[in-house]
Amino acid sequence: MKKAVIFIMDGAGDRAIKELGHLTPLEAACTPNLDYMARNGINGLMYTVGPGIIPGSDTSHMSLFGYDPRKCYPGRGPLEALGEGVDLKPGDVAFRVNFATVDDSMRIIDRRAGRIESGTHELARLIDGIEIDGVKIIFKPSVQHRAVLVLRGEDLSDKVSDSDPHHEGVPVRKVVPLDNTPEAKRTAEILNKLMRIAYEKFNKAEINAKRREKGLLPANMILIRGAGMLRQIETIEKKYGIRGAIVSGVAIVRGVGRLLGMDAPKVKGATGDPRTNIDAKIDAVINLLRDHDIVLVNIKAPDVFGHDGNFIGKMKFIEKIDRHLRRLIDYAIENDIYMIVSSDHSTPCSKRDHSSDPVPLAAIGPDVRVDSVEKFGERFAALGGLGTITGMGLFGTILDWIDKAEKFGA
Amino acid sequence: MKKAVIFIMDGAGDRAIKELGHLTPLEAACTPNLDYMARNGINGLMYTVGPGIIPGSDTSHMSLFGYDPRKCYPGRGPLEALGEGVDLKPGDVAFRVNFATVDDSMRIIDRRAGRIESGTHELARLIDGIEIDGVKIIFKPSVQHRAVLVLRGEDLSDKVSDSDPHHEGVPVRKVVPLDNTPEAKRTAEILNKLMRIAYEKFNKAEINAKRREKGLLPANMILIRGAGMLRQIETIEKKYGIRGAIVSGVAIVRGVGRLLGMDAPKVKGATGDPRTNIDAKIDAVINLLRDHDIVLVNIKAPDVFGHDGNFIGKMKFIEKIDRHLRRLIDYAIENDIYMIVSSDHSTPCSKRDHSSDPVPLAAIGPDVRVDSVEKFGERFAALGGLGTITGMGLFGTILDWIDKAEKFGA
Repeated sequence: MKKAVIFIMDGAGDRAIKELGHLTPLEAACTPNLDYMARNGINGLMYTVGPGIIPGSDTSHMSLFGYDPRKCYPGRGPLEALGEGVDLKPGDVAFRVNFATVDDSMRIIDRRAGRIESGTHELARLIDGIEIDGVKIIFKPSVQHRAVLVLRGEDLSDKVSDSDPHHEGVPVRKVVPLDNTPEAKRTAEILNKLMRIAYEKFNKAEINAKRREKGLLPANMILIRGAGMLRQIETIEKKYGIRGAIVSGVAIVRGVGRLLGMDAPKVKGATGDPRTNIDAKIDAVINLLRDHDIVLVNIKAPDVFGHDGNFIGKMKFIEKIDRHLRRLIDYAIENDIYMIVSSDHSTPCSKRDHSSDPVPLAAIGPDVRVDSVEKFGERFAALGGLGTITGMGLFGTILDWIDKAEKFGA
Repeated sequence: MKKAVIFIMDGAGDRAIKELGHLTPLEAACTPNLDYMARNGINGLMYTVGPGIIPGSDTSHMSLFGYDPRKCYPGRGPLEALGEGVDLKPGDVAFRVNFATVDDSMRIIDRRAGRIESGTHELARLIDGIEIDGVKIIFKPSVQHRAVLVLRGEDLSDKVSDSDPHHEGVPVRKVVPLDNTPEAKRTAEILNKLMRIAYEKFNKAEINAKRREKGLLPANMILIRGAGMLRQIETIEKKYGIRGAIVSGVAIVRGVGRLLGMDAPKVKGATGDPRTNIDAKIDAVINLLRDHDIVLVNIKAPDVFGHDGNFIGKMKFIEKIDRHLRRLIDYAIENDIYMIVSSDHSTPCSKRDHSSDPVPLAAIGPDVRVDSVEKFGERFAALGGLGTITGMGLFGTILDWIDKAEKFGA
């Protein structure tokens, strides 16, 4: 049984950085193991979703598994909820939520409730499971100030506005329907009722009394955004005949995995930030390769450094990844496993956000072509034997490498 | 506010020319400034509309501004009319027209009326503004033998044939409906009536009497082609949130600009041929950059040389462009403006017409990636860091560079 591992350095692609001699962090970093892959395999430039399109981590990972996000992207809410382990059903409407601090007039003091670190489980229990107008409220806390909210019931819609104004010092927004359907009107009403209930219950909660005593901001409101309704989607096993798995510390990336019917276990030590335990994730990958055809592992930290504009940190973390990569390369070679290393999108330090710039990729495997590229990085990958490719194109190529693709025609 | 300038050398791409040592005119030309852009920026090969598709200057420029011509190309007539300053309304049917010379039996003696240079305004006035079957005739002369015709009224169609047979020595074709609708039938009838009226009025016109006296061919007929109906199209400001402008001596290129709601001023000295004043156009670009996000300038002459099969002329003109380019490069660098130089399509001297061969592109900007390309030209651009891209992909990339693009996903 042929297998493949996809190693994604989240947001690792970048632009020219003056202070690095107009190199990118990937080009400037000392990366003997990435260079080994480039030298002994095939390379290419990847526009994950498509040329000129700025991918999110969710839309890019859908593309990398052969699902066109232009056709089946469910929105952020459902992916967060799935990633946090909620068993979503078709028809559920899901949202991202922040615990926040508001004053008596509903003006937002802090969108993150003083970056609350603990106690949100206690608050969540106050509203999780309640019913409003016949609709069940499912409310799960995630890390820090984050939570997911799911509405389960009849006649709901995801065409509703956010209550989160994305600014502080302004009032919480009333949720309004975004179209003229009775479903959108009803969903907006339920959310507005839920916010009032949350405010009343949270304000009286013991944990907030304790926070006030300590001089901390109370988490007395929920800010709602990213509405999405889960639609039926074919599992990857049905669509492509493979078993897939994702190892990631990021909820929406795990959510993509669960959306597509893959395993996406929470791995101890996978934090979704620079403190992540890369070795623990590689262990999980090797473990999952036993009974999965394709395992993707996502290391989030390069993206975090990109958002912070910290090009030195990004370069250094890429070098750290490179040191850990050797063990996985050796495992892949020993076991005739195809191994692809790339990025889901660029997060240029100059932009401090995702960009449409293509990402480099390198792949090795028992019979993978070798091209003339000698080093890993944006400018080198442009000379690669895969040419310019999309995420869906790469997925098709990987399926073919592991003998899971079908001929089109005779 | 980040801005971008797109410098288009119309038809500059070419094929191998034996006499140039199998180089293209772009490869053979001495172009230190284009090479500067290639060396200090990112390069790529662009299939403007798509691989294997031969672009017109109109469809290519639509793609370069993010409009898929396969979905919203209105035909040549409306673009010519818009480019000549006619205020087209949705429902108008527009055509390209040649002033031509016919004999008494309607056989075409000259499709361009002896390449008439003056006096066409006088002829145009004889039919501009008349009504036929309740439809208003708008008829505007353009340069030389060219004119635009617009039918404005109820129940019209662009599904009608050309009266121009594209050959001399054969009769003018009767316009026939191309489908079974009453609108197409009615439009064909109106056009046939108009041609008879034009023949009668032009034959008696004073200017043609004078031409006959001088031994010149009279302009006594109109040949009609390129029917197109203007459909409602979203402006670039609405669709992409940017203000755009085009500087071009070519009517259909300005027409694309006006179609998409951009400014497309006629610039004094911009002739659309090798006599054009490149400096005047660069002045116009710099002026327009003050209050526009993206300004495109088109230099037509390389295409003209390509159509003539004059590869030496083409190469020399590219060298002339290169000398003028330095001022714009310096301006872009000083003002942190992103600058892209490319071509809208290839016009190989061996083919003497547009071709589907991809065109090279180079781009510089404050944080644009630098790749390993050292010179500007087809074979060098193939190694570039943008890989292979389409016009619409390039547009998305430029939007991203100037912070006007939105992320797809989270």
